[in-house]
Amino acid sequence: MPYVDIKIAGSLSREQKAEIAQEITATLQRVAHKPPSYTYITFNEVAYEDWAIAGELLDGK
Amino acid sequence: MPYVDIKIAGSLSREQKAEIAQEITATLQRVAHKPPSYTYITFNEVAYEDWAIAGELLDGK
Amino acid sequence: MPYVDIKIAGSLSREQKAEIAQEITATLQRVAHKPPSYTYITFNEVAYEDWAIAGELLDGK
Amino acid sequence: MPYVDIKIAGSLSREQKAEIAQEITATLQRVAHKPPSYTYITFNEVAYEDWAIAGELLDGK
Amino acid sequence: MPYVDIKIAGSLSREQKAEIAQEITATLQRVAHKPPSYTYITFNEVAYEDWAIAGELLDGK
Amino acid sequence: MPYVDIKIAGSLSREQKAEIAQEITATLQRVAHKPPSYTYITFNEVAYEDWAIAGELLDGK
Repeated sequence: MPYVDIKIAGSLSREQKAEIAQEITATLQRVAHKPPSYTYITFNEVAYEDWAIAGELLDGK
Repeated sequence: MPYVDIKIAGSLSREQKAEIAQEITATLQRVAHKPPSYTYITFNEVAYEDWAIAGELLDGK
Repeated sequence: MPYVDIKIAGSLSREQKAEIAQEITATLQRVAHKPPSYTYITFNEVAYEDWAIAGELLDGK
Repeated sequence: MPYVDIKIAGSLSREQKAEIAQEITATLQRVAHKPPSYTYITFNEVAYEDWAIAGELLDGK
Repeated sequence: MPYVDIKIAGSLSREQKAEIAQEITATLQRVAHKPPSYTYITFNEVAYEDWAIAGELLDGK
Repeated sequence: MPYVDIKIAGSLSREQKAEIAQEITATLQRVAHKPPSYTYITFNEVAYEDWAIAGELLDGK
């Protein structure tokens, strides 16, 4: 029963999300023996204005 | 001081959220003796494209 | 596919967790029509030293 | 490597986010000796309809 | 700047965590073009008593 | 009603947590006009073995 939450600054295409979900699920099955049907993954695309590194928002204004 | 975060694939109506918030708050008061005024609940409606189970995005394309 | 994360300052007994999990799952089934087998709930007991309200840690030292 | 997630009911202006990010990063550097370049901060503006206190949604309908 | 949080019921060995971290980081680099040095991953091993599915705690008592 | 979750690799002393909680609460009051009594902050000290950057666990073995 893994639950994986992925926060990413900016956005991803549907194809990228599908591929990432597939690979992470396969990794958790192979390495941690977690059945895929129990693996939940959520994507959370965060606007650059809402993410800061080193005290600066990533939209760089 | 409970903080409850609810992630749901798809969406809920305002009525559903109101009822869920009321019931969970009542449960935490009755079972865990937490005063309602200290109970925070947030709802997070996740698009089907952003939630995967068994390695497949839920929008099923 | 709801995922519910419950953070509570202090601790709960196993009996309290079992009852809370059962009631929240039932609420989500009745109000939001979510099948129980898809409802994940996690409990996160946070030490009073690790939770602050109004700028003060809850262990009250 | 601190990761700070800020959930706020309602919204903030870009200026508010920039100032908050700057101050929290400085606090973590001064108090916890965390290098700013490793400090990630995300803002999550939650609609009043999606946040409940005391069992009531904050949009107050 | 992805931030990935992995919640798993039960525990993982250090070797499993190292392999999972390596593979997820590689996936995010290859598919989403995220530089590894910006990818943070945290593991959160949740006791079976603290995780419920279908309204039942996973420790199965 | 801000809720701030702080994840830190390694640990903090009680004094550090108290000072960080105080300053963040003050920042949110001054910049975002949030009343301190509604500001919740949680600290989550993550073991180095449970945090990866660039695909490597931080315990550096």
